Amino acid sequence: MSIQRRKISIIGSGFTGATAALMLAQKELGDIVLVDIPQAEGPTKGKALDMMESTPVQGVDARITGTVDYQDTKDSDLVLITAGVARKPGMSRDDLISINAKVMRSVTEQVVKYSPDCTIIVLTNPVDAMTYEVYRTSGFPKHRVIGQSGVLDTARFRTFIAEELNVSVEDVTGFVLGGHGDDMVPLVRYSYVGGIPLEKWISKDRLDAIVERTRKGGGEIVNLLGNGSAYYAPAASLVEMSEAILKDKRRILPAIAYLEGEYGYRDMYLGVPVILGGNGLEKVIELELTDEEKKQLDQSAQSVQNVMKLLD
Amino acid sequence: MSIQRRKISIIGSGFTGATAALMLAQKELGDIVLVDIPQAEGPTKGKALDMMESTPVQGVDARITGTVDYQDTKDSDLVLITAGVARKPGMSRDDLISINAKVMRSVTEQVVKYSPDCTIIVLTNPVDAMTYEVYRTSGFPKHRVIGQSGVLDTARFRTFIAEELNVSVEDVTGFVLGGHGDDMVPLVRYSYVGGIPLEKWISKDRLDAIVERTRKGGGEIVNLLGNGSAYYAPAASLVEMSEAILKDKRRILPAIAYLEGEYGYRDMYLGVPVILGGNGLEKVIELELTDEEKKQLDQSAQSVQNVMKLLD
Amino acid sequence: MSIQRRKISIIGSGFTGATAALMLAQKELGDIVLVDIPQAEGPTKGKALDMMESTPVQGVDARITGTVDYQDTKDSDLVLITAGVARKPGMSRDDLISINAKVMRSVTEQVVKYSPDCTIIVLTNPVDAMTYEVYRTSGFPKHRVIGQSGVLDTARFRTFIAEELNVSVEDVTGFVLGGHGDDMVPLVRYSYVGGIPLEKWISKDRLDAIVERTRKGGGEIVNLLGNGSAYYAPAASLVEMSEAILKDKRRILPAIAYLEGEYGYRDMYLGVPVILGGNGLEKVIELELTDEEKKQLDQSAQSVQNVMKLLD
Amino acid sequence: MSIQRRKISIIGSGFTGATAALMLAQKELGDIVLVDIPQAEGPTKGKALDMMESTPVQGVDARITGTVDYQDTKDSDLVLITAGVARKPGMSRDDLISINAKVMRSVTEQVVKYSPDCTIIVLTNPVDAMTYEVYRTSGFPKHRVIGQSGVLDTARFRTFIAEELNVSVEDVTGFVLGGHGDDMVPLVRYSYVGGIPLEKWISKDRLDAIVERTRKGGGEIVNLLGNGSAYYAPAASLVEMSEAILKDKRRILPAIAYLEGEYGYRDMYLGVPVILGGNGLEKVIELELTDEEKKQLDQSAQSVQNVMKLLD
Repeated sequence: MSIQRRKISIIGSGFTGATAALMLAQKELGDIVLVDIPQAEGPTKGKALDMMESTPVQGVDARITGTVDYQDTKDSDLVLITAGVARKPGMSRDDLISINAKVMRSVTEQVVKYSPDCTIIVLTNPVDAMTYEVYRTSGFPKHRVIGQSGVLDTARFRTFIAEELNVSVEDVTGFVLGGHGDDMVPLVRYSYVGGIPLEKWISKDRLDAIVERTRKGGGEIVNLLGNGSAYYAPAASLVEMSEAILKDKRRILPAIAYLEGEYGYRDMYLGVPVILGGNGLEKVIELELTDEEKKQLDQSAQSVQNVMKLLD
Repeated sequence: MSIQRRKISIIGSGFTGATAALMLAQKELGDIVLVDIPQAEGPTKGKALDMMESTPVQGVDARITGTVDYQDTKDSDLVLITAGVARKPGMSRDDLISINAKVMRSVTEQVVKYSPDCTIIVLTNPVDAMTYEVYRTSGFPKHRVIGQSGVLDTARFRTFIAEELNVSVEDVTGFVLGGHGDDMVPLVRYSYVGGIPLEKWISKDRLDAIVERTRKGGGEIVNLLGNGSAYYAPAASLVEMSEAILKDKRRILPAIAYLEGEYGYRDMYLGVPVILGGNGLEKVIELELTDEEKKQLDQSAQSVQNVMKLLD
Repeated sequence: MSIQRRKISIIGSGFTGATAALMLAQKELGDIVLVDIPQAEGPTKGKALDMMESTPVQGVDARITGTVDYQDTKDSDLVLITAGVARKPGMSRDDLISINAKVMRSVTEQVVKYSPDCTIIVLTNPVDAMTYEVYRTSGFPKHRVIGQSGVLDTARFRTFIAEELNVSVEDVTGFVLGGHGDDMVPLVRYSYVGGIPLEKWISKDRLDAIVERTRKGGGEIVNLLGNGSAYYAPAASLVEMSEAILKDKRRILPAIAYLEGEYGYRDMYLGVPVILGGNGLEKVIELELTDEEKKQLDQSAQSVQNVMKLLD
Repeated sequence: MSIQRRKISIIGSGFTGATAALMLAQKELGDIVLVDIPQAEGPTKGKALDMMESTPVQGVDARITGTVDYQDTKDSDLVLITAGVARKPGMSRDDLISINAKVMRSVTEQVVKYSPDCTIIVLTNPVDAMTYEVYRTSGFPKHRVIGQSGVLDTARFRTFIAEELNVSVEDVTGFVLGGHGDDMVPLVRYSYVGGIPLEKWISKDRLDAIVERTRKGGGEIVNLLGNGSAYYAPAASLVEMSEAILKDKRRILPAIAYLEGEYGYRDMYLGVPVILGGNGLEKVIELELTDEEKKQLDQSAQSVQNVMKLLD
């Protein structure tokens, strides 16, 4: 019996895809294939080669391949989809959705063709709807198609809290439900510093301001960068989910999951706490919500459904 | 007695500077200040914030600050200079040198003002001459001004050898003297796979081709990217040198060192093997060279001196 | 300015001390001095040398010295005290206390003589009283003398919970107050799985059984080993506290702290949540307790005081 | 397709076996089963549990099981054999060999029964002969039965050289052939510091002394410990070989390999440089030896064969 490295393909070699590739290689989680469209062949191969050339000094073994040929993704264990366009000036939100949905369908067909047994994590925005589109295109069982948003949202929340209190980020936990960004439903009562509820540490006013900053966290980075959007924290979030699956860790993380009645929703993807392990999304964890929380989650779900209508 | 984190400032928040910041944070080597010019304030702060927001999921504690104010670099232990322009179409080589030399003088004055006790590593090209410019502007002793090139060149060489033989990069070592890239003097007889000299593994023809590819390694990435130059392997190389200093490891690495008679050169910077530790460049290691090697090194030194003439 | 490695001395080269040395070296947190009494000179030097000989394959740089001469501990940043005897058959509890208190006085005098500015973490049992003894012998300010017990107790608790639910240990948090082991006051309402309170995951009966098993966690290992007591988890706990201090992380961890009115106690050491950073124990965090919790904590404090009476 | 953790069984829960278990868990290389004889059931379970209880603070997920039932080793990917007795006063060398050979046969039968596809690494002394015994008992192909000795011998050699020159262990490489310890054939001409041959760094006299100290390295630790033998460096060596296999790294390391004509030997195990990867021992690397080196290797081989005669 031969032991083989895991294989992870990343669709989209932009900053997020490339940074995720770097972080996966640093952790020696497997060999990495970075895929993009033929027009991006040069940069895709250039980033992969540059990264490979960093492995001797980083002290890690990982093959990192840049390619425009999906055949190179054959038999991947895990596929991360970061492809798609960002909204540009003059582009309507409906146009954005329509373009990215088309991208999802096209890349998913290729992914499924070469890796029929893989697990897929989707990052492309609007991520709840895009994960749904990948799911129905793939024909995969629901536990093998997952979206990322809550890990990133809580990472931002934890950063702001740690900064506010001048304590280690390791001892701050956060908890969100629902859609990404503006639609995020922060469950402050399930967020802690050193195990002690947040409201014992921070005044309501400051906490509200931090929650609001978290909701707008993606926009804050977009405004600062001027040209482009966040990629370090999104990539790290994808990698944390990937590691949970590739090492069968059974982590409890927020993720965009296909719901079949949980929390009262059906046939849609929404951000909820889940168990991530070797089988992908192993379980949706259901919480009792307060009326207020449920109302907010309903709003979030409604806004996902509004986007989903535009998919067809 | 209070234990404080080390402080590392990175001048230039482009891809290399930002990637080095990420890698330093991942290793928890200290707090990081990313500095750029006022026109780049937004992106510099955006990258720093995005990186900070990745720390909770990466499980590390590090303050990463983006700034355009050198006051924020106060009392740095280590400063990495990555600032400067890349050659653009229509720009002469002399213009490039003149522009970057001016950048070196300006940033060095600021660095020295706020961190008179720091150690500086220079990456800006043409790196031998730019390190010299930083050295004479700083007024620092020679062991506290070092240039990077050989770690990167050997990283590329090691990558190509490991790929050729399908073995771990960890067991391939390489060795270069002299200037960066085209002027590199590879000492193949001091390069090994598993401790066994390279020529027992690879035919002369293939080895020559790999050496040639290594010399042109920077250009290969530039051609692929189409727009911009390598940053993953350069950043990792800076970080390996930084770690050697910050952890007082006394690593033996190739670096651009100020020579005072070693190898027959004087009052110039050139790539040679050195010991890097808590005092910066602790020692230049002198090797006996064959006539052929010495001839190549003379050429390399000559070409550094030609650039140095343009500094004034 | 030269950058020097941190220096950590470990008093007592038994299994816990030696395992802590290994883990500190693996993390490259500094150079390590392992100290024991003259009769144990051989094993102390043997373990240190064996560990040193593992560093090339572990890929870390750390000097590990075994010694019986406290002069070798000079200028330590951090000192871990693991010395002392374990209760043997026929030895009364009072005898144990009297013997270990004498050990504490003797080693503390030596530690203070050579490292007047260090921070000390005490592990020797009964740890609350022994930390007190070290404190008053040292003449150090209270933030530089800390005891370990809660990190270990919660590590056990988290292990049992993660096993019960088959989830990652990374997503289980626990919280204890008070003395070590039997006197532990578990605050189950401040313990979570994935941020969700424990009682939503586990029935009251099972939870009570797990709390009980945690209380007796040290004894469970003693019974299994037959000869000796736990050392892997105790050493890892010491190292987590050490890392918080040496990297100025400002972690929020349970620790044995000197109280001056907090929680209603005065001039004694007791396990409470604290902030650990570059200044040692930077802050005691006070929680409102329920009457039941306060009653348990009073009991725990009483039993610490009973031991303290035996110190004189 | 579900992703499962690798499974590693360690036969023998003494210090070396237990320390290897700890290091494998720290690297999250898989779940670990620590096996010993029924008389050692308590300590075996105690060590495994204590280690498990360290995982939350070490931040790793790994199931560590202590057992006396080989059924728990079922479907292991990798098995490390550390079982056997050490020579005691009054025990003849022949008795030692006869006892340990019996142990090898008995454990191998059990290992093979439950994990017919695993790779085995043997550490038990005299290791060349014991590896042979495991090989012929197992009926496994030669690439799946490997012995450890050279990684440990070179680790010691590298430690002494790094200490002598006060440089990082990372930049010192060593090379040995032949049997373990006294029979070791150090190839000093294939050993380097920073890629530069050893003889440029160290005088012949000092080098001879260091080689001699390396040969007697095991004895030096035995003498210091007084009771027992080295385990930190041996465990780390086992773990480096394990990682090479479990991550399919294709490392080039010295290992005890079954020879079929290489170096002129046949049907015996001897220490030679090999490639270790996902298929176990993927290749023996043959070097040209000088007459003097060949003579030494012949002696070493002869002494292995003398031991092998005692196996029957």
